[in-house]
Order: sequence, then C-alpha cells, then structure tokens
Amino acid sequence: MGTVGSGVVELLNQNKEIIGKRVGADIKITRAATIAPYDNIKDLLKDAKVTDSVDDIINDPEIDVVVELIGGKTLAKDIVLKAFANGKSVVTANKALLAECGEEVFTSAYNSKGLFGFEAAVAGGIPILRSIKEGFAGDEIQEVSGIINGTGNYILSSMTYDKKDFATALKDAQEKGYAEADPTFDIEGIDTAHKVAVLLNLSFNGLFDYNQIYVEGITGIEKVDIEIADEMGYTIKLLGKAVKKENGYEGRVHPTLIKKDNVLASVNGAFNAVFVKGNFVGPTMSYGAGAGSHPTASAVVADIVDISRKVSSETGFRLAPLSYALDNLEKKQLISMDEVEGEYYLRFSVQDKTGVLAEITKYLGENNISIEAMVQKSHEDNNEKPVDVVILTHKAVEKNVRKALEKIDALPMIMNPTKIIRIDA
Amino acid sequence: MGTVGSGVVELLNQNKEIIGKRVGADIKITRAATIAPYDNIKDLLKDAKVTDSVDDIINDPEIDVVVELIGGKTLAKDIVLKAFANGKSVVTANKALLAECGEEVFTSAYNSKGLFGFEAAVAGGIPILRSIKEGFAGDEIQEVSGIINGTGNYILSSMTYDKKDFATALKDAQEKGYAEADPTFDIEGIDTAHKVAVLLNLSFNGLFDYNQIYVEGITGIEKVDIEIADEMGYTIKLLGKAVKKENGYEGRVHPTLIKKDNVLASVNGAFNAVFVKGNFVGPTMSYGAGAGSHPTASAVVADIVDISRKVSSETGFRLAPLSYALDNLEKKQLISMDEVEGEYYLRFSVQDKTGVLAEITKYLGENNISIEAMVQKSHEDNNEKPVDVVILTHKAVEKNVRKALEKIDALPMIMNPTKIIRIDA
Repeated sequence: MGTVGSGVVELLNQNKEIIGKRVGADIKITRAATIAPYDNIKDLLKDAKVTDSVDDIINDPEIDVVVELIGGKTLAKDIVLKAFANGKSVVTANKALLAECGEEVFTSAYNSKGLFGFEAAVAGGIPILRSIKEGFAGDEIQEVSGIINGTGNYILSSMTYDKKDFATALKDAQEKGYAEADPTFDIEGIDTAHKVAVLLNLSFNGLFDYNQIYVEGITGIEKVDIEIADEMGYTIKLLGKAVKKENGYEGRVHPTLIKKDNVLASVNGAFNAVFVKGNFVGPTMSYGAGAGSHPTASAVVADIVDISRKVSSETGFRLAPLSYALDNLEKKQLISMDEVEGEYYLRFSVQDKTGVLAEITKYLGENNISIEAMVQKSHEDNNEKPVDVVILTHKAVEKNVRKALEKIDALPMIMNPTKIIRIDA
Repeated sequence: MGTVGSGVVELLNQNKEIIGKRVGADIKITRAATIAPYDNIKDLLKDAKVTDSVDDIINDPEIDVVVELIGGKTLAKDIVLKAFANGKSVVTANKALLAECGEEVFTSAYNSKGLFGFEAAVAGGIPILRSIKEGFAGDEIQEVSGIINGTGNYILSSMTYDKKDFATALKDAQEKGYAEADPTFDIEGIDTAHKVAVLLNLSFNGLFDYNQIYVEGITGIEKVDIEIADEMGYTIKLLGKAVKKENGYEGRVHPTLIKKDNVLASVNGAFNAVFVKGNFVGPTMSYGAGAGSHPTASAVVADIVDISRKVSSETGFRLAPLSYALDNLEKKQLISMDEVEGEYYLRFSVQDKTGVLAEITKYLGENNISIEAMVQKSHEDNNEKPVDVVILTHKAVEKNVRKALEKIDALPMIMNPTKIIRIDA
C-alpha cells in the first residue's frame, strides 16, 4: 500500500467498469497486507480485509492473484515463492528480485500452476516486456537498449539543459522527489542493470547471470563532458543494453554518447524509452513514464488483467477482437467536425494590406476567434504577388472558423481561399 | 504471395526454430493461393500446395489459421467471412476492409469460434493494437494520435528538409517506391482514416462509422506553409486522431502543426509513430517502420503466434514467463566487457600540449585504436589549469582501450585519469 500499491487500488476502483467488460469478470481486492499507512485509500479498501500479515493473503484459497509491491529480496522473495508454491499467480514490479534471484524465482514460476506478470519491473508505463514477448514474438531480437532509469535521465537532462553540475542536479532531483535520499541504486546504474537482466532473459529466452552485467553509473560525468559532447553533436544518456552479437551476448550499463538526431537523444526528464531491433521488424522505439504511482499501476493492472483473462479462459472466456463482448459493443457516433475545438493556422493571401487586417480581425472577433500570433511574408522581389499573412489562433470552434473565413474570403483584397491547417494543442 | 505474403513466408522459415520454441509447436504453411508470381520464395514453399484458388484453403479442415494479404473489400471480404464461417482463425493486414466493412467483419469474427488478428493493419512494425488491448488493458484510453501513413510522412519530410514542393516530393517518393503509381489513398488521407477507424473501435471498445471520420489529405500543403510553420516553431505532419472528449469521440485526419519539441515532430521519412494517452499510464509513444515486407510480416506473424499459442493452450500449453519452456531455457553467458567492441570518447587532462599528443596517439596506434575526431578545450582565463583534449575513436576493443590508457595515464603531462565514455554506434 505504498506509492504503487495505492495507485493499483485507485486504478482498479476508478476504471472498474471498463476493466470488468474487458476481462469478462470483476476483479476484486479481497485482502491487502501493509505496514505503511493507507489512509488516502482507506475508503477504496472498505470491502477488503487489511492486515499486516502477508500469510493471510498467500494462504487464502479464494485468492487467484498475489500482487507483490514491497521491493527488495527478502520478504518479497518469500512472498513470491510461497505464492507460487500455493499455485497462485503472481504480479510483481520487483526488478531487483528478478535480476538477482532470477533463477530461483523463474524456476518456481515455471514449476507452479500460477502465472507470472512482471511488466511493471521495466520501464513502468511502457508495455515493453509484452511487446517483446508478443508483439515481436516472430522476430529474433537483436538488440534492446534503453533509457530505463528516470532518476538518472532527470539528472543528465538537467545537467544538459540547465547547465547544472552533477551535485546540484542530484540535489535538485532529490528536492523534487525524482531521486531518493540514498540515490545509489539510480546514479550508480544498479537499477538499470536490474532491468537489463530482465530484458536479457526475456529477449533471448534464457537465464543470464546478473553479476556478469557491466555496470557504470553517471557519477563520473562532468559538465565539461556534456559540453564537449554537445559541441560534437552528441547527448550523454545512461543506457542499459542487451545485445545479441555473432559471438554471444552483451549486457551493459554505462553513460553513452548518442547522436542528437537519434530519437533516444530527445527523451528528457524522468521519461523512459526503449529501443528494440528485431531481424524482421527492424528498429522500433517506445516511450513513456518510467516510474510513478499511476504509470506503474497501469503496468501492474495490465498484468492482473492478462492473468484474469487467462483464468477466465478456463471457464470458456475468450478475449474478444475489440476487447468487449459483442453484447457490450455499442455503435458509437463521432462528434461532427463542426463542433470540434482546436487552434488554427490561417494563411491569408492579401493583395493590399492597408485596411484588410482590420477586416480580417473584425470577422475573427465576431466569431469568437482570438489571435495568438501573426506573421507576414512579403515577396520583396515582386510587389504584384499577394502577401501571405499568417495568423495562429487560440482555441476556437471549427464552425466559427468556417463562418469567419466565408466572410473573409469574400473580401476583394483576399486573392486566394485562406489556407487552414490545424494545430496540435 | 505479394510483398507482405513473401515476407511472412521468409519470416516463418528463417525464424522457424525460435518460433517453434516460443509457441510450443511448429507453424506450417500447408497451402497458399496466389495469382502473383512467387519465384523468389518457391523453394521455401516446397512443402506447401500452391494454387490460385482460395477455396482450397478455406475448405481444408486441417488448416487452423487463414492469413489474408490480398487487400481490398471484395475477394478479401469473401475470404475472411467464409474463413470465420468455417470456424477458422483469421489474420489480416487489411485496414480498408476493417474500416469500411467493420461491422460485418467484426460481427462474423465474434460469431465464429475462430480468433482474429489484425495487428498488421495499423502501423506495420509497431505492436500498437496489442499495446492498446493488453498493455493498456487497465486504462481508459483518452487519445490515440499518430503518424500512420509512411508515404504521406515521407513526402512531408522531404518538403520540410529537402525544400521540395509537393509535386516534386511526390514524384521522388514514387521513384523511390515509397508512393504508388496512384497515390490517392495515401496523399488524400484515406489510408490514415482507415487506420483511425480501427484505432477508434479498439481504443473505445465500440463500433464507429468510418464515414463519420473527417478526412483531409496533404495535397493542399504548400512550401510556404512549411516554411512559415518552421519559423514559428512547428513541423507539419499528417496526423490521424482518435480522441475521447467529455461530449463524445473525435475521429479525424488532417495535416497538423506540431511543436518541434514534440517527439512526433522528429519522426521522419517512411517511419510511423503512435501517441497513446491513458488515464493512468499518461502519455506514451511508439515508433517503428510503418510498412514494408519485413516489418509488416513481423506483425502478421506475431498474430499467427498469438493464435497458435491460444490453439496450443487448448491442449494444455501455457505461455511461459520467458516464452521458452523450462527445458529449453539455457543458462547463458555474457561476453566479457574486455572483448566488447565500440567507439570511445576519451577526455585527456593535459598540462603541456607540446609533445603529449604525439605520445597519446602513439599508444593509441600501438593498440589498434584509430582516431575519428579530436577537439581541445583550453581555459583561456587560466593557463595553469590542465587543457581538456577529447578524442573520438573509431571502433576499438575495450581491453585495447584500457591497455592504451594505462600507458597514457602514466605520462607525466597527464594530470587526471582519462575519462572514458562509450559512444552508441
């Protein structure tokens, strides 16, 4: 019932209805064990039995799925192994456990009749494990590389863009809650290495030894390195890499110079991104929140849903082509484009600017369209050609824009129909 | 047996062994129907019966999965509906069929005991449908927006970066094979709208009317718009959008101004990218090849694998935590970091430059390390401080780099241990 646990409770409560329809059954939290205070979600847990003993959960024959969100390798390992031994399915976000006790945990998962979900252990909100396992199920994976530690990326981004030195950037990250009081796991690359271990196992369908992974953190990166790299066209990122080579596999974590036009170079702040290359799919990249209560809860619940669908399938449930069952599949209407609200780029072809701007702004104003910016592009070499006047609007309703333009385009000084391009707001 | 069909045959052949282990069964192509020549893959189809009649496939009781890669809405529809009626599972890449005959096709899928895979219909190599359906299974989807037409994006990119006008960019795209002889579907936004229809249905778990989608292509975009947008900090992209609003749903396709620091703005050429926002996961983005024989085949085969796993599950098969069964799960070794090859950023702290560069390059040369670039950063205000000399190397083996640096760092003119940062090659 800590950060992620609370998020899971909130998610299962708030999205209860759609989840029920997508699974074909309700998912209920019947028991919870916590030593943390949970006042913020107490109301949401009113139908659950909350104690401080995990045994109550593991030994309850009614429970299908045990969700371990404690972290660490002692009590957490105990919970996971006992849950599997009792035939329960397990969902965890615990990368340290998967990396450092991988063989033991996976063997117990294989030997259990329970299922095992660990999507939340790598890159929080990015469903990268599922993509590797299912989306690229036909591919031979050649490389998985990523920015998979939000704290490290936040510090490097702030060294790069705010010109801070390492110590100041770290302190700032701690104050803003992006780094823990003891930041060792993040800044020394250990957290990234844990995730690389999981990615190695899954991408190459084997069991790798976590201790063989090369690990180097970001504590040695100085401002001068970021500056020189920048001048030479590179950005420095902490990468975790799992690579298949002709002579074997590489697993490594270290600061890396990335060319600025590489998509990974523009992944900033606490965001994560994972590059995957398969022998048929080619290069792919996924981007999203790497941590945080809600994004991690999204990954945990995706695993709970997945297991629930499989549990339901034993009673004949089958995941529908559009997730909902046919009975629940409503015919839905789109909002007419007339009613859609957005910002607009309007390019007017104006012959004689004197007076026409007043007319244009009058008609825009009459239709509740306000102006955010205006530029004008004249053809210096040719006074006969119409001048392009571009106006960017604030939010406006499409039908109002059309109404205004009908009037404007009828003006004698307007030489061509006004060009409308929508702006992504 | 056209572009995508050939790719599927190649993939299933080339990755046969890993796919067999991931599915727990071999996937065999027993029959194929084609009117296209298929000499390029004839050898790979030597165990299959190849005819020109699809009925041979649909009526063969031994066949579990029918893969439709014809396109269009006539024969393709017939194949899909008959296959479902015969209880077979269907995999298709046909977005026109799903969009324009959605209700009919999905209803027949729901009423069949067959399963339905259509990952390849949207954004080729990006497993975006699987992410929406499974990765974000717990989320209420709020928005799905994307660059989902490679041809249109190729043309806009070449208008933006090569300063071409629309007609020249289109002709170039046709010559390079990125646009068809009749480019209407791509440049008028129809292909994008087909994909938006699929995204609407899946994201919002309902049936939408394709004809209600607002569709505007890129034929009206002029060079001047791209130039002015650029000056104002925007890039123009053809976006397909499926959005949940308080008052309903929006489905629209149109050229859109995107702020240059938005990740979508840097998606260029024939690549696709899809932005998904869920109420818990937050913003996410996936990027990859949007079309082409191999990436699309990757998506088709992922669906075949998915269905095969479900078919196998009826005989007790269960998708293993690491895809392979425990028996097949080897313990694997990593290559030692000493043997890893890469490019390096080396920052030397040099007190007196005279002579020392000759020493540095001598030791690098002796260890087979060649220099790609060199810069020097002196402290003009302070002659006492060491000078930073940065060398970027060509590919070199890590142990050779260490060996060279051991010698170099022992030189009297080297003031601090040399900083090594690896370059992503």
